[in-house]
Amino acid sequence: MAGLFITLEGPECAGKSTQLKLLADYLTQNCWNVLCTREPGGTTLAEDIRNMLLEKRNEDIAPETELLLFAASRAQHVRQVILPHLDKGGAVICDRFIDSTTAYQGYARGLSIDFINQLNDYCVCGRNPDITLLFDLPVEETWRRLTLRSGGKGGDRMESQGNAFHTAVRNGFLQIAQQHPQRIHVLDAMQSIEDIAARVRNIVGK
Amino acid sequence: MAGLFITLEGPECAGKSTQLKLLADYLTQNCWNVLCTREPGGTTLAEDIRNMLLEKRNEDIAPETELLLFAASRAQHVRQVILPHLDKGGAVICDRFIDSTTAYQGYARGLSIDFINQLNDYCVCGRNPDITLLFDLPVEETWRRLTLRSGGKGGDRMESQGNAFHTAVRNGFLQIAQQHPQRIHVLDAMQSIEDIAARVRNIVGK
Repeated sequence: MAGLFITLEGPECAGKSTQLKLLADYLTQNCWNVLCTREPGGTTLAEDIRNMLLEKRNEDIAPETELLLFAASRAQHVRQVILPHLDKGGAVICDRFIDSTTAYQGYARGLSIDFINQLNDYCVCGRNPDITLLFDLPVEETWRRLTLRSGGKGGDRMESQGNAFHTAVRNGFLQIAQQHPQRIHVLDAMQSIEDIAARVRNIVGK
Repeated sequence: MAGLFITLEGPECAGKSTQLKLLADYLTQNCWNVLCTREPGGTTLAEDIRNMLLEKRNEDIAPETELLLFAASRAQHVRQVILPHLDKGGAVICDRFIDSTTAYQGYARGLSIDFINQLNDYCVCGRNPDITLLFDLPVEETWRRLTLRSGGKGGDRMESQGNAFHTAVRNGFLQIAQQHPQRIHVLDAMQSIEDIAARVRNIVGK
């Protein structure tokens, strides 16, 4: 399999963006041609889909519709951006990917996990990530960091989803990790930035 | 199962629109509350998706992306328009539905028919059409009618897809009909409008 495909997963405020930058630097120093990207996004079509969903948020978009729109966006992202870079032997680091869909829309929103798995398989075109780094954080800590980051507003946003939702997301991620022990590495996001970065380099270095 | 759900399938110029109007009149006379709709379309989201695809036709939208966008549009159409009308005991007549996706994107474009079937099942939310009327027409006749209708331009459009494509669509529709003999009724679209309408009333009347 050509290239190196790494995805970062976990809740908000788990330090994914910080570790993504450090990992990109590390891989660049090790002579990889690194492409950093994120979902949902990565193509102009994905931006259009996101704008469409934002425009229509007061209408009743069914959760199944939203799932399929994000899948369309991912199918395009993989074929237009991710696969071409991997095929040239490059490294792709993607902030959120298939496991976020399974955790948020499957485990937390209750859509069929079997169907989401089939959809994810179809979207990735046979090319799953080589390594997935799952940044695990207790729900209370996510909440605390969100509130800090946004000067009090983040708590409201978390609260609007409910504690049960975020607990389901966290447990979902951990269950997915158990099902894919070769691919997914669980990291304790309570540790210091440098300790986590060292662990990431250790995992990727192998 | 509440309501009556009828879909019309077949190539362009097979007389679907004409028969749809006649069937709607017939059902209305028989005290049905009739809703006529079409795919792709039927909701503002579907219109947005169609516009997005049109705007981007010069970019490389992957066929898989297009399939998923149409699926998203169908999931919304079913949940927002079709199911609510059926649940109230109404009749829905839809110009093109799941079988067009299987015929055009599966049999003719070569995308996985197994996956399309799963996607269609997910979109329809357990509510397949009660009756599907398949208007069958030899490819040469479709071509002749398109050219007539558009003053010569239709032929170009057909030609751009190629004869093999349209033959695959026709054969695809006929294969799908063989797989669903209870649901799908094949009509000879070479017959006169009145003869076809009589056959439609006979099928639906039962």
